[in-house]
Amino acid sequence: MAEHTTDLPDVSTLTIGILGGTGDQGRGLAVRFAAAGHTVLIGSRSAERAQRAAEEIGARGADNATVAAEADLVIVAVPWDGHRALLESLREPLTGKIVVDCVNPLGFDKQGAYALPVEEGSAAQQAAAVLTGSRVVAAFHHVSASLLLDPSVPGIDLDILVLGDDREATDIVRALASRIPGARGVYGGRLRNAHQIEALTANLISINRRYKAHAGIRVTDV
Amino acid sequence: MAEHTTDLPDVSTLTIGILGGTGDQGRGLAVRFAAAGHTVLIGSRSAERAQRAAEEIGARGADNATVAAEADLVIVAVPWDGHRALLESLREPLTGKIVVDCVNPLGFDKQGAYALPVEEGSAAQQAAAVLTGSRVVAAFHHVSASLLLDPSVPGIDLDILVLGDDREATDIVRALASRIPGARGVYGGRLRNAHQIEALTANLISINRRYKAHAGIRVTDV
Repeated sequence: MAEHTTDLPDVSTLTIGILGGTGDQGRGLAVRFAAAGHTVLIGSRSAERAQRAAEEIGARGADNATVAAEADLVIVAVPWDGHRALLESLREPLTGKIVVDCVNPLGFDKQGAYALPVEEGSAAQQAAAVLTGSRVVAAFHHVSASLLLDPSVPGIDLDILVLGDDREATDIVRALASRIPGARGVYGGRLRNAHQIEALTANLISINRRYKAHAGIRVTDV
Repeated sequence: MAEHTTDLPDVSTLTIGILGGTGDQGRGLAVRFAAAGHTVLIGSRSAERAQRAAEEIGARGADNATVAAEADLVIVAVPWDGHRALLESLREPLTGKIVVDCVNPLGFDKQGAYALPVEEGSAAQQAAAVLTGSRVVAAFHHVSASLLLDPSVPGIDLDILVLGDDREATDIVRALASRIPGARGVYGGRLRNAHQIEALTANLISINRRYKAHAGIRVTDV
């Protein structure tokens, strides 16, 4: 136990942008970061839709490009389908910024969820390949949107694995993750090991089905 | 929380065979299962080497083929390199048996560990492809050999994810996992989602390095 969240940077003043922020995962993260005192910008293809989603949770809404330009740190919570195209369109406004990818490339059939192959290795590596001027970090893959969105759930019993090759950026995202009550940001490895963290979401879906749970993971001895 | 270990079958009388049982992972599991009262057979290419390793821990040692034939349940703990060839050679004695694969196909370089691609998807799927007459289950990927082998560690703070397509077989292996003090066997999905569980070992190695820990995982809300 060499390191604790108390050693992490102060991120309390960061403006957080969430691309694809009208989906469950995006809104769930937005609610918790807004509750933690952050200015949160919800992005969507449609500014109007973003504004409607934002109003409900005391955030601001705008189109994805505006959010990418105005936020200090940007979370990518779009469906896997539109992942590459969206990031290609936002290369310029995202330059120099920390971009946190939480996208899980999954397929679904009668037997449940399974991991989709990704040419670059993982969604996070695809983001890094497209956004060569950004500091790409992978995190927030396993947090249950329904728990995030449930106001009767005060804290979330979860470690948020934070992966990346830029130590300062992963520390910032670990600090941000730890601002979700109950959660803790834990370094989880380099970006080349992001695929299995994204794919693990398929296992958590299987676990949820079997145990009728909202499963998360905790890392022991850390 | 629909299911608890108390609902699991009684596995206390199973004879456990460990192929590649002279390695750290194999010996570590052998020590704990022997301590839990199981008859444990340690297998190796060399019967003599197996016998030497077995003596230290109150188990019996034999060549892998003998162990495959005599054990009720067989754990595959060989290096990834020899995985396919060993299983091909043991198809017949393993027919009808539960075969638990705990092999992690990993590469290592200066930046640490990373997941190797596997033609069949994962080591466990390769085992299932080779051992068409066996009941292949994947489990015990994340348990630290050094904790298993350390007599001063009374219990291991860990959930052991158990994957497979045969419900009865995964329940038996969950019950077996739960006989390691402190550990709990948790269903973790179908065999097609085994790759990311094997690959997650690379992330745990990164975590161990960063935090100077013996990290494991726990599944929350289950």
